[in-house]
Amino acid sequence: MPKIRVSVVGALGYTGYELVKILLKHPQVELKYLADKAAVGSPYSELFPALRGLCDLRCTATDVTVIVQNSDVIFFGLPHLTSMEVIPEFLKYRKKIIDLSADYRLNTAELFLKAYGAEHRDKKNLANFVYGLPEFNREKIRRANNIANPGCFPTGIILALMPVLASGLIKPEAIIVDSKTGISGGGKTPKPAFHFPECNENFTAYKIATHQHEPEIEQELSKIAGQPVDIVFVPHLVPLTRGIFNTIYAELISPLEPDDLYNLYRKQYEREPFVRILEYGKSPEIKHVAYTNFCDIGMKIVGQRLILMSVIDNLIKGASGQAVQNMNLMLGFKETLGLI
Amino acid sequence: MPKIRVSVVGALGYTGYELVKILLKHPQVELKYLADKAAVGSPYSELFPALRGLCDLRCTATDVTVIVQNSDVIFFGLPHLTSMEVIPEFLKYRKKIIDLSADYRLNTAELFLKAYGAEHRDKKNLANFVYGLPEFNREKIRRANNIANPGCFPTGIILALMPVLASGLIKPEAIIVDSKTGISGGGKTPKPAFHFPECNENFTAYKIATHQHEPEIEQELSKIAGQPVDIVFVPHLVPLTRGIFNTIYAELISPLEPDDLYNLYRKQYEREPFVRILEYGKSPEIKHVAYTNFCDIGMKIVGQRLILMSVIDNLIKGASGQAVQNMNLMLGFKETLGLI
Amino acid sequence: MPKIRVSVVGALGYTGYELVKILLKHPQVELKYLADKAAVGSPYSELFPALRGLCDLRCTATDVTVIVQNSDVIFFGLPHLTSMEVIPEFLKYRKKIIDLSADYRLNTAELFLKAYGAEHRDKKNLANFVYGLPEFNREKIRRANNIANPGCFPTGIILALMPVLASGLIKPEAIIVDSKTGISGGGKTPKPAFHFPECNENFTAYKIATHQHEPEIEQELSKIAGQPVDIVFVPHLVPLTRGIFNTIYAELISPLEPDDLYNLYRKQYEREPFVRILEYGKSPEIKHVAYTNFCDIGMKIVGQRLILMSVIDNLIKGASGQAVQNMNLMLGFKETLGLI
Amino acid sequence: MPKIRVSVVGALGYTGYELVKILLKHPQVELKYLADKAAVGSPYSELFPALRGLCDLRCTATDVTVIVQNSDVIFFGLPHLTSMEVIPEFLKYRKKIIDLSADYRLNTAELFLKAYGAEHRDKKNLANFVYGLPEFNREKIRRANNIANPGCFPTGIILALMPVLASGLIKPEAIIVDSKTGISGGGKTPKPAFHFPECNENFTAYKIATHQHEPEIEQELSKIAGQPVDIVFVPHLVPLTRGIFNTIYAELISPLEPDDLYNLYRKQYEREPFVRILEYGKSPEIKHVAYTNFCDIGMKIVGQRLILMSVIDNLIKGASGQAVQNMNLMLGFKETLGLI
Repeated sequence: MPKIRVSVVGALGYTGYELVKILLKHPQVELKYLADKAAVGSPYSELFPALRGLCDLRCTATDVTVIVQNSDVIFFGLPHLTSMEVIPEFLKYRKKIIDLSADYRLNTAELFLKAYGAEHRDKKNLANFVYGLPEFNREKIRRANNIANPGCFPTGIILALMPVLASGLIKPEAIIVDSKTGISGGGKTPKPAFHFPECNENFTAYKIATHQHEPEIEQELSKIAGQPVDIVFVPHLVPLTRGIFNTIYAELISPLEPDDLYNLYRKQYEREPFVRILEYGKSPEIKHVAYTNFCDIGMKIVGQRLILMSVIDNLIKGASGQAVQNMNLMLGFKETLGLI
Repeated sequence: MPKIRVSVVGALGYTGYELVKILLKHPQVELKYLADKAAVGSPYSELFPALRGLCDLRCTATDVTVIVQNSDVIFFGLPHLTSMEVIPEFLKYRKKIIDLSADYRLNTAELFLKAYGAEHRDKKNLANFVYGLPEFNREKIRRANNIANPGCFPTGIILALMPVLASGLIKPEAIIVDSKTGISGGGKTPKPAFHFPECNENFTAYKIATHQHEPEIEQELSKIAGQPVDIVFVPHLVPLTRGIFNTIYAELISPLEPDDLYNLYRKQYEREPFVRILEYGKSPEIKHVAYTNFCDIGMKIVGQRLILMSVIDNLIKGASGQAVQNMNLMLGFKETLGLI
Repeated sequence: MPKIRVSVVGALGYTGYELVKILLKHPQVELKYLADKAAVGSPYSELFPALRGLCDLRCTATDVTVIVQNSDVIFFGLPHLTSMEVIPEFLKYRKKIIDLSADYRLNTAELFLKAYGAEHRDKKNLANFVYGLPEFNREKIRRANNIANPGCFPTGIILALMPVLASGLIKPEAIIVDSKTGISGGGKTPKPAFHFPECNENFTAYKIATHQHEPEIEQELSKIAGQPVDIVFVPHLVPLTRGIFNTIYAELISPLEPDDLYNLYRKQYEREPFVRILEYGKSPEIKHVAYTNFCDIGMKIVGQRLILMSVIDNLIKGASGQAVQNMNLMLGFKETLGLI
Repeated sequence: MPKIRVSVVGALGYTGYELVKILLKHPQVELKYLADKAAVGSPYSELFPALRGLCDLRCTATDVTVIVQNSDVIFFGLPHLTSMEVIPEFLKYRKKIIDLSADYRLNTAELFLKAYGAEHRDKKNLANFVYGLPEFNREKIRRANNIANPGCFPTGIILALMPVLASGLIKPEAIIVDSKTGISGGGKTPKPAFHFPECNENFTAYKIATHQHEPEIEQELSKIAGQPVDIVFVPHLVPLTRGIFNTIYAELISPLEPDDLYNLYRKQYEREPFVRILEYGKSPEIKHVAYTNFCDIGMKIVGQRLILMSVIDNLIKGASGQAVQNMNLMLGFKETLGLI
């Protein structure tokens, strides 16, 4: 089977870099262009010295025609708000497109404005993207041309809540999500909050109930529940590089036995290659999923209260690994190819 | 004013060590005995080399008569379950006693058995200890002979909840406490969970809704509320050395304005030297209280939901600093002496 | 090509675990036995939950006959001093054996006694092991039945010094090696020095000029130089999990141009798949080799002084990755199989 | 005794902040102005929330007349190259001045140009500053009006080498200094190298034999030795916030007994309140001096080679603590006032 030709537009951020690392090892991929206007002409392995000897590509400009003619799949690792400026031109050529930014995840321009504080610049294409969470949208993804790859918080939170929301076991208006993310979630640009002496040996909440991922989470959870879902979402910053831990508190509508809860999760995810259900009462740990595409889920019932916990690597299952999982589905490859 | 004579029984753990450091700088204290059977005869500064040149005491055996005759105040930094074996002998002499263990914090032997899985060995003295949270029990502490110094989790959680519980603003049966603690909270004994390569770059929940501090928290909150308070308590382990961050989710009984909430907290704590209320909506940060006796509290209302956040240094306000604060109160010193 | 059958004796330590992870992904390997008396019968993925869904083996006892009959290659991840008690029985069957302990690295029992303070228990087999540093001993490894896999410090130090020592460019009696290792180098057993609150935010030297790896380094460097080499070796502990950084100070015998130095290194290692030479004057970084089998080397001349720097992942190129590299060589596989 | 009035010009960096914290607790100091043009009018405790309740000053502009009229001592925490633009105006008033920047440490403009790549803008005043290392220059400091506070690397390195260099025991041309610094040494401005995900779990050398502190170290060591001293200086970056560990390799001119070496150091420093000599052969540890003004020194002889190790807190003994130690000397206070 000839390899598929893949390019990455916006290859210099953390998700772009993780994507390149996965694609370099993917047995069915030939990496063609790493386009980033910030480093045109530079060897990629000079910018990311861990790749010396493993990648001999140079960064290129974002020449739409050239990239489109030589690529079957194009990933976009651009910042939010930039993606929607660049992608429309690419959409004309009907190549497989996977956008890792937030720009095509929300279904309406109104919601986008609310979440990101900016007018959407490509409203007409919002409906042309499929939300790329394979465990929820697998068949749609298989048939999709354009994927909006989920955010890192939404991925772990939706996977944890999907079984009980879909089954109508919890109150959709009383969900609390207390999330903890490693610092790489804040991106590659140095900022005071991510300066080592500031965040090392520190712990803080941020964007309390105002995080831009909250509308995305509620939008998708509402589809799953078949009714409006409203969450309280409080993200926190943990002094480690990679990983997200979500602790979710929900209210059971009726009493539920531990075994029934556990079996619901086992059944929902038994054929999922990247979701692992922990023994009832056990906590997942970030180190068990770091550098992998896995999402581990734990659970416990305390009276009428349901406690769910999920962990992912924010850069892999929360971004680049899931993007490749989506690519595998779109192209009919084995879903785990290049990811295990 | 002649200095008071102070001894520490159980001086080799993290709280013992922090206590010694504070007492060495306290202007009204003369440190007499550092008793610990594990190191009788060893210079304390050899065991804790940071104190070379600052402390010339040697560890001694726990000779009750000698210690009692030469001390006005005796702190106990012994492990849980050991404290109640050692303290009864000291109680006979009616010296000021401050126990940093959990052994005299719970009001009944039944609760102790439930929390610590062991029969209490000194039941008759349970009623002779005052719970040493100055912001709640200041006057009792002033008159007390024996103090049960609060646990690290209870300290920050009670301080955050006291104003709204005392005012009857939240439902006492619907409180969720999601806590995050640094690794020193697990004590000084090496264990797999605290082995650097295991907890570094990791994050996990533990003792989910089964932590031994939960009965202590509920006991004291119930006194504050004047009715039974029931919490869901999920502690997590953060890869940093010192500090606790509590995120608390409660339900308002009636709608509340941000200003009214904020003013309630400001008023409650305006004369408290060690509690600081943050501007509405702001998150506290562990680094702002590390190595201090402060507790910083933040708050935000989201619909009917109240989010409270508090941070302390688990070894200072959560243990040794608070113990010295209690000593200052018991002896009529300025409350902040040696602590700011 | 049928897969080769591989077993691991001593699979519960950090190097055993890393080895299992590499072998699970190796396209030519069928993993047969994970023998460890400490966990007979336990699913390996229960002990290492990151492997849930990836490994369905259970730990077994160390049954020599069974293991030997069903394995083509046997790795030993046992502690020093234990390996030499277990391996002799296996040697009788003339299977391919790769020992990750230090027990067969030193060429004489005298040197072993000096380094490890214990009598060697299998002296007669010391001569039957090849020192498994492929960049130095590739042809011998190809023909070997038994490999003594190099220590983590020796690997990076020897690779840095080999070109200039082999060329006679530096004084063999005036070499200073200042090494810095992550905490996983201390193994998996919890000890006070590796307790998170003790080593986090700390930095210290240890075993100053008395480290057990020093004789191993000198033994191999002397072979390379063709004359006795004497080093001063000072290891330090860095608060990170994985990686070693070596800074080496040597004295040039005659003045040397930067270009000539650089070209010497490029030429020596140009066909080496796992050694990368950095641009003259640049420092390597641990993060560029973490989780890989690479060794990156940097260099700078300051007057008559030569500064060499090398980095490896102590658990991969410094242990399990190099062990698999050796296996690939012994079996005629591509050297990088399963490692890139 | 009335308190002395102290102001800080340049109070927003890490050294400025540490200085303010020390001065707030200093029993003889009244803090007057915290001048920093970047935050004129802002409450200092809003910029550094750890100081809420402890400091009620607001930042002011750098109004020379006002500051000079209301201050007895003025500290400067400005960046290198800025200090020499601001200080000349202050010098006219002959107040006690302590500059924490590098601008007045080097004795000649030539050396400054070499080290900092810029013309010195206040050459005529270079001779009017005393190098503020109390253990070397105590009497000069007592009589000085203007102090150039030593750099963080020079402080620990000079203290370690002073006894053997002053005694002529080592070769002054063959000294290797391998230093390791925490990230706060790089200052408060976010930069890629100090972005948490970049330096966490990493270790690297930087400015190899080109660090701007090297001329300062050599200048002062040459004065101590009474002849030119030439060092090879290689600094490294450690993933921790505070502290420097120096490992120094020197060559003994004649054989030396461990006891004689040890006694030399004990004698040199026996009256020094902030230098502690470790038992022969022991390594100092950063955590033993973090948050203190101590410098701990360890030593070991290996043949003709002398290994010296020293640790300091780069922000305290390496900057702000030493600055206050200098102030205490200049004003005739007890040297340790406010520092122990």
